[in-house]
Amino acid sequence: MSAQAAVALAVSTVIFALRSDAESDFKTLWLPLVRRTRDPYLDQWALPGGGLPGDEELAAAAARTLHETTGLAPRYLEQLYTFGDPGRSAGGRVVSVVYWALVESGEADLAVVGDNVRWFAADRLPRLAFDHNRIVEYALWRLRTKVEYSRIAHAFLGETFTLSQLRDVHEAVLQKSLDPANFRRTIEASGSIVDTGERVAGTRHRPPRLYRYNDSGRQGEPDPFGPEPATAAIPTTN
Amino acid sequence: MSAQAAVALAVSTVIFALRSDAESDFKTLWLPLVRRTRDPYLDQWALPGGGLPGDEELAAAAARTLHETTGLAPRYLEQLYTFGDPGRSAGGRVVSVVYWALVESGEADLAVVGDNVRWFAADRLPRLAFDHNRIVEYALWRLRTKVEYSRIAHAFLGETFTLSQLRDVHEAVLQKSLDPANFRRTIEASGSIVDTGERVAGTRHRPPRLYRYNDSGRQGEPDPFGPEPATAAIPTTN
Repeated sequence: MSAQAAVALAVSTVIFALRSDAESDFKTLWLPLVRRTRDPYLDQWALPGGGLPGDEELAAAAARTLHETTGLAPRYLEQLYTFGDPGRSAGGRVVSVVYWALVESGEADLAVVGDNVRWFAADRLPRLAFDHNRIVEYALWRLRTKVEYSRIAHAFLGETFTLSQLRDVHEAVLQKSLDPANFRRTIEASGSIVDTGERVAGTRHRPPRLYRYNDSGRQGEPDPFGPEPATAAIPTTN
Repeated sequence: MSAQAAVALAVSTVIFALRSDAESDFKTLWLPLVRRTRDPYLDQWALPGGGLPGDEELAAAAARTLHETTGLAPRYLEQLYTFGDPGRSAGGRVVSVVYWALVESGEADLAVVGDNVRWFAADRLPRLAFDHNRIVEYALWRLRTKVEYSRIAHAFLGETFTLSQLRDVHEAVLQKSLDPANFRRTIEASGSIVDTGERVAGTRHRPPRLYRYNDSGRQGEPDPFGPEPATAAIPTTN
């Protein structure tokens, strides 16, 4: 078992937010990255994170390192995946437990930015430190395969939203334009959203309707971005 | 970063198989456990697993330790979750990357059994070593919340199956009896299975029909127990 000593543990976090993209017609996914200030990968951009102290829970370490570097404090982080290929770090072997969260743009605007913290478009990343390009690719894959049958899009929006805002999320995640009329028919047929009867406040002649997610009849399907059962529903005394 | 040295890494695996249960009317979920032959938790039952060598990939270590202890070699293991609470081990801190797989009963029958390896009904476990009761509870929760909208049940069955066999899987996972006629109507209405036109070979007057899963129109939904994109679709050179 002496070989175990060679493996270090770290946590990293992928934060996705929806932001307007000056270079395209629609909103796209962005994420905050932190510039490395030491070796290995000095000066390269990396996911927020750090080594795991001996007495800190994994999610707590992810939340702390995220907050220390970016100022962000998402309501909850979900564990995404653990990356442990022996060759993923140029230094000694590091196994990284990766967390992720989707944040509303209001929350994203609270992030500190500066020389060493910056937001990047998820589809136009530079070469990142470690295997962090691969980690972001994996997170995007998870997002894209989940958006069709879950309420992931909801995490990017407020309690109520317009059909146009919801389409923005789907377009950003799927990276393609969606026909507004088809999108409306598909979403309405799915029964997944409910017309609140209210409209966006404003002076337009026909302000857009506000919708919310339909919570009925979905008991069998957990919110993929809801609290982890590991911290909520499962007894911790075993 | 010196605190990192205090954290050891391990892998463990949860293997579920469907087995007939002498104490109940229907099939239930079983899993193989291994008796500990050293401290901590000497003589207690635990998930198959072990420490992570410095040069072995996570999934490879999980597959190797599973095979060494139980003789099982599932076609693929999926990463389930990483458990890392500071107090989860009575010895020093251990972070465990947990894999899981569902195996057909034919595959399950290949397992070695003896004084130190035994199958247990998932809902009647003794007190296990470490936090392994909690890990099994988490795996069961994941299974139950996924079975409704995925093809997890398929992993327990062969290429073709009868409606009765499919109902057995749903009953075992959901831990409740399902009305055969309602089950047939619901499954047929879902369009998720296809009548192969064949029937079970045998001498009965009306042998049961054989079905297979309908693979059309599901491109957007990955098989939750298919190969991990981490090993298939994602470039590994970043």
